[in-house]
Amino acid sequence: MHVTLPDGKQLELPANATALDAARAIGPRLAQDALAATADGELMDLMTPLPDGAAITLITRKKPEDAAPLFRHSLGHALSQAVGEFYVAKGYPATAVKRGVGPAIENGFYQDFDLPEPLSEEDFPAIEGVMRDILARNLDIVRTDVGKAAALEQFSYDPYKVELITALPDDEPITFYTQGDYVDLCRGPHFPRTGALPAAFKLMSTSSAYWRGDASNAALQRVYGVAFATQKELDAYLERLEEAKRRDHRRLGKELELFTIDPMVGKGLPLWLPNGTILRDELAAFLKEQQFQRRYQGVITPNIGNLELYKTSGHYQNYSDSNFSPITVDDEQYMLKPMNCPHHVRIYASKPRSYRDLPVRLAEFGTVYRYEQSGELNGLTRVRGFTQDDAHIFCRPDQLKKEFLDVLELTVLVLGTFGMNDVRFRVGTRDPGNSKYVGSDENWNAAETQIIEAVQEVGLPFTVEPGDAAFYGPKLDFVVKDVIGREWQLGTIQVDYNLPERFDISYVGEDGQDHRPIMIHRAPFGSLERFVGILIEHYGGDFPLWLAPRQIMVVPIADRHNDYARQLEQELRDAGLRAEVDDSSNRMNAKVRSAELSKIPVMLIVGDAEQAARQVSVRERTAEGTRERKAVGFDDLKAELLGRYETRA
Amino acid sequence: MHVTLPDGKQLELPANATALDAARAIGPRLAQDALAATADGELMDLMTPLPDGAAITLITRKKPEDAAPLFRHSLGHALSQAVGEFYVAKGYPATAVKRGVGPAIENGFYQDFDLPEPLSEEDFPAIEGVMRDILARNLDIVRTDVGKAAALEQFSYDPYKVELITALPDDEPITFYTQGDYVDLCRGPHFPRTGALPAAFKLMSTSSAYWRGDASNAALQRVYGVAFATQKELDAYLERLEEAKRRDHRRLGKELELFTIDPMVGKGLPLWLPNGTILRDELAAFLKEQQFQRRYQGVITPNIGNLELYKTSGHYQNYSDSNFSPITVDDEQYMLKPMNCPHHVRIYASKPRSYRDLPVRLAEFGTVYRYEQSGELNGLTRVRGFTQDDAHIFCRPDQLKKEFLDVLELTVLVLGTFGMNDVRFRVGTRDPGNSKYVGSDENWNAAETQIIEAVQEVGLPFTVEPGDAAFYGPKLDFVVKDVIGREWQLGTIQVDYNLPERFDISYVGEDGQDHRPIMIHRAPFGSLERFVGILIEHYGGDFPLWLAPRQIMVVPIADRHNDYARQLEQELRDAGLRAEVDDSSNRMNAKVRSAELSKIPVMLIVGDAEQAARQVSVRERTAEGTRERKAVGFDDLKAELLGRYETRA
Repeated sequence: MHVTLPDGKQLELPANATALDAARAIGPRLAQDALAATADGELMDLMTPLPDGAAITLITRKKPEDAAPLFRHSLGHALSQAVGEFYVAKGYPATAVKRGVGPAIENGFYQDFDLPEPLSEEDFPAIEGVMRDILARNLDIVRTDVGKAAALEQFSYDPYKVELITALPDDEPITFYTQGDYVDLCRGPHFPRTGALPAAFKLMSTSSAYWRGDASNAALQRVYGVAFATQKELDAYLERLEEAKRRDHRRLGKELELFTIDPMVGKGLPLWLPNGTILRDELAAFLKEQQFQRRYQGVITPNIGNLELYKTSGHYQNYSDSNFSPITVDDEQYMLKPMNCPHHVRIYASKPRSYRDLPVRLAEFGTVYRYEQSGELNGLTRVRGFTQDDAHIFCRPDQLKKEFLDVLELTVLVLGTFGMNDVRFRVGTRDPGNSKYVGSDENWNAAETQIIEAVQEVGLPFTVEPGDAAFYGPKLDFVVKDVIGREWQLGTIQVDYNLPERFDISYVGEDGQDHRPIMIHRAPFGSLERFVGILIEHYGGDFPLWLAPRQIMVVPIADRHNDYARQLEQELRDAGLRAEVDDSSNRMNAKVRSAELSKIPVMLIVGDAEQAARQVSVRERTAEGTRERKAVGFDDLKAELLGRYETRA
Repeated sequence: MHVTLPDGKQLELPANATALDAARAIGPRLAQDALAATADGELMDLMTPLPDGAAITLITRKKPEDAAPLFRHSLGHALSQAVGEFYVAKGYPATAVKRGVGPAIENGFYQDFDLPEPLSEEDFPAIEGVMRDILARNLDIVRTDVGKAAALEQFSYDPYKVELITALPDDEPITFYTQGDYVDLCRGPHFPRTGALPAAFKLMSTSSAYWRGDASNAALQRVYGVAFATQKELDAYLERLEEAKRRDHRRLGKELELFTIDPMVGKGLPLWLPNGTILRDELAAFLKEQQFQRRYQGVITPNIGNLELYKTSGHYQNYSDSNFSPITVDDEQYMLKPMNCPHHVRIYASKPRSYRDLPVRLAEFGTVYRYEQSGELNGLTRVRGFTQDDAHIFCRPDQLKKEFLDVLELTVLVLGTFGMNDVRFRVGTRDPGNSKYVGSDENWNAAETQIIEAVQEVGLPFTVEPGDAAFYGPKLDFVVKDVIGREWQLGTIQVDYNLPERFDISYVGEDGQDHRPIMIHRAPFGSLERFVGILIEHYGGDFPLWLAPRQIMVVPIADRHNDYARQLEQELRDAGLRAEVDDSSNRMNAKVRSAELSKIPVMLIVGDAEQAARQVSVRERTAEGTRERKAVGFDDLKAELLGRYETRA
């Protein structure tokens, strides 16, 4: 066999050669430094036979981060081995610990256990200690193939392994990875020895997990860890976690009184408190303004619909898992609406349309209801009822590109308003080998071409993902990086050939004949609930003036300044600004602290001097810290704040 | 026996004397002129024995309108008799026509028939002719008492009368009214003779009605008529009807594309079309502004709630007829929310409240769902899903009057903005003899006193209606007269001692103890659906500029003015005004006509002269007719329109 090296050279190797064999053939130094390899772009370990003819690269200890999934996987084995030793040390036999799966995951690894007594997070330091010891032992990690009978014998004490092995084909070798006296049924890939594993790991948490994810099976204990190539990366990750915890929208949502979830009202059904309602209304008003200028037309439709509507649209059949149970009304059945599209299609169909009337852009902040398992519910980001900033554009085929581009530009503008400028697009196109798609090849080809042209015109990074289209049309997702580097999928644009067909809608063309319009579904925010959840974390609760539910706190220094403070408050409110007075009996410093805890962006402090000159002392929260200005004329300041509010600066 | 006359004199009369006997005792002229009487304020006819000791007045042919229910009832008999003669003339025996009930109603009368062949509205002129002939015959209308056996024999051919007579007590006389050869089982009261009946009547329509209103009984044919004392009143009424038809919100809703109801989406579930959505959004924005200034706080709550919530509030048990069937979610049950109050109470309860935090005013444009029989549904005014401009004020007892007054003032201001200045209040207080009321006497007395004081301060007409309070607190309804004189009940304010109790909510008083707040429910519009329905009829679709969904149509005289027209359109839209261009190929007059049919309040006509001077010719719809202005500077006009829009002038 042969493999191709990065410099194009071919390397002849004996049959079934591994990457370690290849490294040795190049030189002993490389064989010593090598940790992993890629073959035709796929990560592999040094112990697994290479595919004949593959283009390979070797990953050395200079860049262990390139093989992160391998060392994470191997650290999972180290955890698994360490937990075994931990229980042996407690006096249990080695066979007392049984094991479920243990893969590498993003940023780390986990391992499922069936333990003789449960593990607690307080045991983590001890187990991490055993893991470090296993690394210090520098055990070789050895890959071996065994027959099924031998495999079953090896794991006769472990019903989970027996179940897995029994399901494997009889006539194929079964792979074990062994380090010291620890053996695991595993396909790999792994690092070559425990001594090469990075020590930058940390056990994080434990939870319950059903064997094979099935609630009718045994509940296992899952232990999570994180791991990075260097301590610096681990520290940065842990710091990001801490930062994310500080920004957690559930915590800030409570502290800033933005929303609450009340089991008496219902799980996954947020109640928007006054402060959150302002935030949400500001977002809606902002988008409505943009949509007015782009000639969208608002509509409002009910939160329920006749089941026939959803049978016609296909939502009833195709999304039955997320439908709520039907409501019987006289001799009809209704359902909480899971999507706004069918209602909008019926509005389109409510009168004859001509080619001159198109595009028709129907927009609605439409509240929809979808069932989610109660265990999946999470604050504002995973709910059972949410409001989409939905719109459906009905256009002619020759208008698709322009409409698509307009939606792209609108979405980029909207996200940019929140400082979300690190945006990339994922374009989902057809899988050419699949025939599930609705609509003609001609339409699909045209649509895919036009979407990609539109994306190119915007000039932001994008990837084309063949096979990621919906069955009813190509789509585009926005992926946005927030200020702490997390990526969020926000907003979607989908082209749809299916609903116009199912509802048999049309327009009269220039030729006097009926034609089928194309539908575009789009939602720049996605859902207001999820978007606000993300915004809270993105801003860490420190909203810009226009979004801040509480914009201005007027702080009188002493009681004798209360009237002046209330007068300023009223003038600010008359101008439409959200001003308050802290006329409590607290001392000035306490008032300032209280306004800061509430993350109110602007504080106006007023005492004798200010009152005499119709001035204020301004204390503002900015990204760079507190900014203070003394003796500012109140009228100028009001105009400044109003300008910033109105321009959403 | 004796009766008292209006001048206070007592009149001695023989036992069982009638009002006619009384009139005769006063003088023969009065006996001739008398048509009816009142005894202790109750209308009576001249043929029925008066109660001993009653204070009576006589109604003469000078003021027949005072006895309208009587002549309407008698005209019902005339109709009944005429229909009998009509079928006899067709060759049927007199017994072929059977009869259900036939009362006087507002503005007229109806009679139910079981006919040998159905009547059509084309028969109305002929039947009206027979009725006029019956009036011309001047038949005496005679009241007689008969025994049950004789009554049954008289009506042996008519199963409906037999059923009614059979149900009457055996030992009491049964009353018949007879005119010529027409006899009817009837309690009266009636005019004394057919010649005294006004000829100002008209048969209006026919419909199907079940015997005794029960769908399992026979379907009878009901014939409706209207009747007034004078032809002038009848003409005015018919003109109002025509006007109401022209203003019918269902017709205008379709013509102006405000809303549509689509059976595929659901009965009683309006879809708000783009134009209607603008109208609705403008109303909401207007009220939100007012509420911001009055320190209301917006909240948003889901459209469903756990059944436990509605069991706690009592809505589930107390309003079961209007509840939709429950939705099962995992092991819980949910329901479409029929009211927003329980959600708002839970928001109040979501954090501790101090006496200093009160009043808390939570406002929501909350969409609720209530079952209505499909036969009751009507356009926007009777629906199954609607959005309330709801708010709940949680206040201390000492704040009730001020809060109530503030709501009164807000509502009067809101209604006045639509030119609805003819407002009266109905204050519903306890029925002192009833013990169904929740809450202490002390609270009730204080609340009733404070409400009446608040109403007096507003200075508009009001009535106090004892017994009209809800069981949970006193209430106030707004009754508003529209431009064509119809009265509408709009908006309610209700004081509530019950929900705070059921949800056990409290605030910490100045004394450090827990106290129960009082709740006020209020909705100035009532429901946006119903209010918009009424507004459409109130304005006849001719909305003022700020409400008009389509505000400005720019009309280029020739194609060469299209660019200028589009430029003006864009400048107007940039300022937030809803402008359009009619750049169709139609001629100018057709464009003007089309904009007028769409009731667009402002038309800007642009030709060579306007384009050269950045001017427009303005054509406006006003209450007084079309107003035209030539050569108006565009920038001035834009500022003028924007000013009118922003001030809702």
